[in-house]
Amino acid sequence: MIPPETPLGEVGERPLLERLHARIPKGTGVVVGVGDDAAAVETSALVLVTTDCLVEGVHFRREWSPPRLVGRKALTVNLSDVAAMGGVPRYATVSLCLPPDLALGWVDSLYDGLLERAAEAGVSLIGGNVARSRESIVVDVTLLGQAKRLLTRSGAKPGDLVVVTGTLGAAAEGVILLDQGARLDEEGHLAATGVWTETSGPAVVACLRAQLDPRPPLALARSLAERGMARAGIDVSDGLSVDLLEVCRRSDVGARIDAATIPIDPSAAGLARARGGDSLALALHGGEDYQLLLAVEPPQLDALRELARVWSVDITAVGEFVEGEPQLVLQDGGGTRPLAPGGHDHFRTVGGGEAKGEGG
Amino acid sequence: MIPPETPLGEVGERPLLERLHARIPKGTGVVVGVGDDAAAVETSALVLVTTDCLVEGVHFRREWSPPRLVGRKALTVNLSDVAAMGGVPRYATVSLCLPPDLALGWVDSLYDGLLERAAEAGVSLIGGNVARSRESIVVDVTLLGQAKRLLTRSGAKPGDLVVVTGTLGAAAEGVILLDQGARLDEEGHLAATGVWTETSGPAVVACLRAQLDPRPPLALARSLAERGMARAGIDVSDGLSVDLLEVCRRSDVGARIDAATIPIDPSAAGLARARGGDSLALALHGGEDYQLLLAVEPPQLDALRELARVWSVDITAVGEFVEGEPQLVLQDGGGTRPLAPGGHDHFRTVGGGEAKGEGG
Repeated sequence: MIPPETPLGEVGERPLLERLHARIPKGTGVVVGVGDDAAAVETSALVLVTTDCLVEGVHFRREWSPPRLVGRKALTVNLSDVAAMGGVPRYATVSLCLPPDLALGWVDSLYDGLLERAAEAGVSLIGGNVARSRESIVVDVTLLGQAKRLLTRSGAKPGDLVVVTGTLGAAAEGVILLDQGARLDEEGHLAATGVWTETSGPAVVACLRAQLDPRPPLALARSLAERGMARAGIDVSDGLSVDLLEVCRRSDVGARIDAATIPIDPSAAGLARARGGDSLALALHGGEDYQLLLAVEPPQLDALRELARVWSVDITAVGEFVEGEPQLVLQDGGGTRPLAPGGHDHFRTVGGGEAKGEGG
Repeated sequence: MIPPETPLGEVGERPLLERLHARIPKGTGVVVGVGDDAAAVETSALVLVTTDCLVEGVHFRREWSPPRLVGRKALTVNLSDVAAMGGVPRYATVSLCLPPDLALGWVDSLYDGLLERAAEAGVSLIGGNVARSRESIVVDVTLLGQAKRLLTRSGAKPGDLVVVTGTLGAAAEGVILLDQGARLDEEGHLAATGVWTETSGPAVVACLRAQLDPRPPLALARSLAERGMARAGIDVSDGLSVDLLEVCRRSDVGARIDAATIPIDPSAAGLARARGGDSLALALHGGEDYQLLLAVEPPQLDALRELARVWSVDITAVGEFVEGEPQLVLQDGGGTRPLAPGGHDHFRTVGGGEAKGEGG
């Protein structure tokens, strides 16, 4: 037994890899699993592939996020991408860059989260790679999935409704709470409320969980794509404004959204109000919501609402796609104004941070 | 036109991604390419998947390696893994972690190398991701391939020959040369000989190229696997001793190799001799050769030699697999002695470095 506080530099690359690989169960469809030059897996003829990584200091901080939740989120952000294509996730590879002074126990807990999330989603881990980094942890996941019917970003037509699942803004509020000292423990329970009183506990937990352990509507996404209930889809990762503009660009349409209909997360709204913040800006530009944004033909809305109810997901029509240039208009109160995208840019801002105000 | 010296922090994540994606041609079998939530590709029913990354300061240094060659090598190390399974490479995703002060031109050149190597190997890039890192560059590639007949690490039997392709030790000698100031330019031509005179130029170039732009025997690997000419295979990435022991462990056999037969790279041997180094240790433990190590039934050797000639690859039988525990024995001069694996461990050593002497 190697003590969990042992630094990786003392464990060594090969023993670490063997330790991690020994924990990975051999999944369905896996012909050759971890440990050979490459994995070999059975798939459908059409395969979905996506890759996304979490970088310490940019996407997470060690003091903000228990390693188990980092592991869960590293897989979740990729699950969200496959879901947004209408796919079923199947196989994942995990590439880790780890500094030599990192404790073995941290990596064990990261793998707890990865394996647990993989089991929940029916995903088999098929490849692992570890490399030394100088300072920061990088968790890079590539996910393979399969789909019968693809849901791309490019099918929206003028007159289609702009529909979002769930609520928006909680993940961005979660970053603010972390910055104020609020914390979850390894199990996802409240460990510290930071500057907030105990009575705010439930709202604080909701926003921290949205940030640290997001739950995209995976089953609904697959289900609505198979039924052809949406013409275009994207996951809301960069922020509603940025991701909606992306669908507009790919589909060569514009969009008009109504501020009053945007499903601002009630926990985020309450906390933002209490600190004098702008919860609409959080919902429009905060990002990391990992909800779905869909283009839906108006006659399909009722059937989609029915389907969403089966999966216990709320859906909201927040506007419509319109003829014209790929640009956004926001109806707010009586008037309308252009809406500039304002999602966060990881090259320009440092480590998450507060959602930026809208431009233009 | 953005000037190539512009730091990425000024370019921004989305414009950078769009710039890189615009360069990627849509390849055969690609149904949805870069730029949607996930790529969608056509494959065979059995898919190979491997992932490997290059980390700055661990696998490469910016002052040692032109970015175009980093791009080439990032794909090559994965091509080598798919080849060692007997597969044909098809699709690759590239995940980049880049510090905000890195110049745009560096990333453009990295992509020159990635795209060029992908075209050489018949691989389509299908996904790209960029994230900010604090300091170091990480180039993480996941490669999908397909195979009719798998070549795993676990099929070696007692009596099979240990066969290696090409020569060994040049890549490790290349690291020593880089440390002594020798350099290649962006095109792979000699830019500086370091401490060596001009007459050593060809040997210096050969070793630098082996380190910075390795060329695994991809076509031979696929061809011999399809014909079932080897019972087990692995690519020599960690060093002959480490990788051979790995085949022994997976196949539950031992191995005996003969020092006199090991195909030490002649350029590496000459340079090592001149500096008073041990070229046998380089060949046994140096690593990063990206040659194939195979378990071959003796009656197959002539046919394999014939096939290798077609692909202009040298092959050498260096020993045989034997009954018993997974361990290695080296015949050297008159005697035999146990051979401990001595490939480099990226968690324990800093940045490549000289091959370690063999243990016990």
